[in-house]
Amino acid sequence: MTDETTAGIGPQDTGAVPVAELWRGGICESLHAGHAVVVDGSGQIVEAWGNPQAVIYPRSSCKMIQALPLVESGAADAAGLTPAQLALSCASHNGAAIHSDAVTHWLSDLGLGEADLRCGPQEPSDIPARDALIRAGETPCQIHNNCSGKHSGFLTLNRHLNAGAEYTEVDHPVQVAVRAAFEEVTGEAVRGWGVDGCSAPNFATSLQGLARAMAAFAVAREGRGLRDSAQARLVQAMMAHPEMVAGETRACTELMRAMEGRAAVKTGAEAVFVAILPEKGLGIVLKVLDGGTRASEAAITQLLVKYGALEAGHPMAKKWGNPEIRSRRGIHAGELRIAPGFGA
Amino acid sequence: MTDETTAGIGPQDTGAVPVAELWRGGICESLHAGHAVVVDGSGQIVEAWGNPQAVIYPRSSCKMIQALPLVESGAADAAGLTPAQLALSCASHNGAAIHSDAVTHWLSDLGLGEADLRCGPQEPSDIPARDALIRAGETPCQIHNNCSGKHSGFLTLNRHLNAGAEYTEVDHPVQVAVRAAFEEVTGEAVRGWGVDGCSAPNFATSLQGLARAMAAFAVAREGRGLRDSAQARLVQAMMAHPEMVAGETRACTELMRAMEGRAAVKTGAEAVFVAILPEKGLGIVLKVLDGGTRASEAAITQLLVKYGALEAGHPMAKKWGNPEIRSRRGIHAGELRIAPGFGA
Repeated sequence: MTDETTAGIGPQDTGAVPVAELWRGGICESLHAGHAVVVDGSGQIVEAWGNPQAVIYPRSSCKMIQALPLVESGAADAAGLTPAQLALSCASHNGAAIHSDAVTHWLSDLGLGEADLRCGPQEPSDIPARDALIRAGETPCQIHNNCSGKHSGFLTLNRHLNAGAEYTEVDHPVQVAVRAAFEEVTGEAVRGWGVDGCSAPNFATSLQGLARAMAAFAVAREGRGLRDSAQARLVQAMMAHPEMVAGETRACTELMRAMEGRAAVKTGAEAVFVAILPEKGLGIVLKVLDGGTRASEAAITQLLVKYGALEAGHPMAKKWGNPEIRSRRGIHAGELRIAPGFGA
Repeated sequence: MTDETTAGIGPQDTGAVPVAELWRGGICESLHAGHAVVVDGSGQIVEAWGNPQAVIYPRSSCKMIQALPLVESGAADAAGLTPAQLALSCASHNGAAIHSDAVTHWLSDLGLGEADLRCGPQEPSDIPARDALIRAGETPCQIHNNCSGKHSGFLTLNRHLNAGAEYTEVDHPVQVAVRAAFEEVTGEAVRGWGVDGCSAPNFATSLQGLARAMAAFAVAREGRGLRDSAQARLVQAMMAHPEMVAGETRACTELMRAMEGRAAVKTGAEAVFVAILPEKGLGIVLKVLDGGTRASEAAITQLLVKYGALEAGHPMAKKWGNPEIRSRRGIHAGELRIAPGFGA
């Protein structure tokens, strides 16, 4: 499934800068480095830290791009998808009841079921949902997979395209459409592709390419054309339904709630984070080199504050941007701090 | 509890080198950097990558040092501790039944109970134990904490010292004894201290200091004196009971089983890993800068192979040193590789 011949591209060749530090007892115990870039609606770099040309896999941070063919094809409207379902198509959800119930109904409305998914099973990260499964003696299924909303979107598009069942194959019409949209909005030919955790292809691009796409989402307005309308609808859906995009206790949900419509944000595996700022017409992308999610969460929070989407004094700015480390007895042990110079 | 005045020391000031790379679809997706050092019984450096003078918290990797006062004081023998219990005193265990049952009996033998622990509650990482608790509607307690064996050792020493109940305070006789042993075996005054996840103090030292201690454990033999005997007994206990030191599916347990008495290994939070090689008389210490455990596990495996403790063709050398990444449907997606030049 993978092509390992293009060795040498990727963030290892680049000048990453310190992003976040873990402090404990007066000593910097651990350090995360990475890249970040802010791009405007013309695709130009407003500000960058590290190397904005570093090649990354967006992983789940590009789900709103993967949802573009679903909307632009007319498949979403033909299926009568609601804004909550569009938000779920962009989600890395917790597998809580609100997510798994919505996916179950969505598949049912399509005349499909869990067996039609190709994302694989995953234990819910939502603790009540996880415990309910264990108490019932049930095994997690594909509906609990954090990507099951994206895959329901793929299946909706696939129904519209009348294509074959193996919709995660890279040459399947669903993924061909996703790749075309990805290249158009990033403004770059894909730099390679890999198999994502949910078995769908994930296309590589530069940080600037992905940020160019996020800025395009930020400046898009409904009524200006097919692409603009689709982008604006997806951004509005994410901001209107932050609970569908991730879930309780999660950064995406809590930050979007705190920003009250000033930004849509999305995390991706291996410490990618993106932000779409419609008020400012900006797109933000960052990647922490080592894949440490705690650092990408802190870094995006720092940039959301810097660009005015999140108030510096909001409790979520502290919770996600400068989290305290406590022992299992609740004793203060340290904190995660933004590295000097990052996002300054 | 912490002293955040000694800013500036720690691994951020140092020249870390690439340690491990995550490859997906022909692209290096993520990268981990760090330091490693190999020291002989005279305390001299045999080989190093990165900066062996970088200051680190050993975290749980130094539990065999924290157990020295337990053995040297005579407390372990007075309490009739078995080798399995000594291994458990050096453990970061899974909270499986073999661990929680052993701790429950140990505390009972001391006339103590769960409420006397000061490590805080933690959900077992052992899935059968976790699920059994959930099905029974029970809450994880301090006995399930991965450090409960170490804390049972602290309580055993504390009984012997007849000191107060708050044995995790840094000026309590138990921790004063631990600090003295730590400084003696590392050959360095501690560089600071922090609160560990289990609320006990954790003392900072250089990689070389910690490796000097591990080499001292490696060359220690029973009958040569109090310190040597205690060190040799703890190493033998760890190697004889790898199941007590971590648990099923864990690197420490699986690597020690594979090495069949050629090395004792121990992980610590924030990606520290140590190895004690009695056959070679060597101590190894490594720290991955970002705290990424997948990289520290791969790196120690590489060094165990290089120094002859683990056969290169053993399945555990592949599993821990070069793990495959699969999607949730089991499709090959990539692999974690040792970075070129590390451990070469």
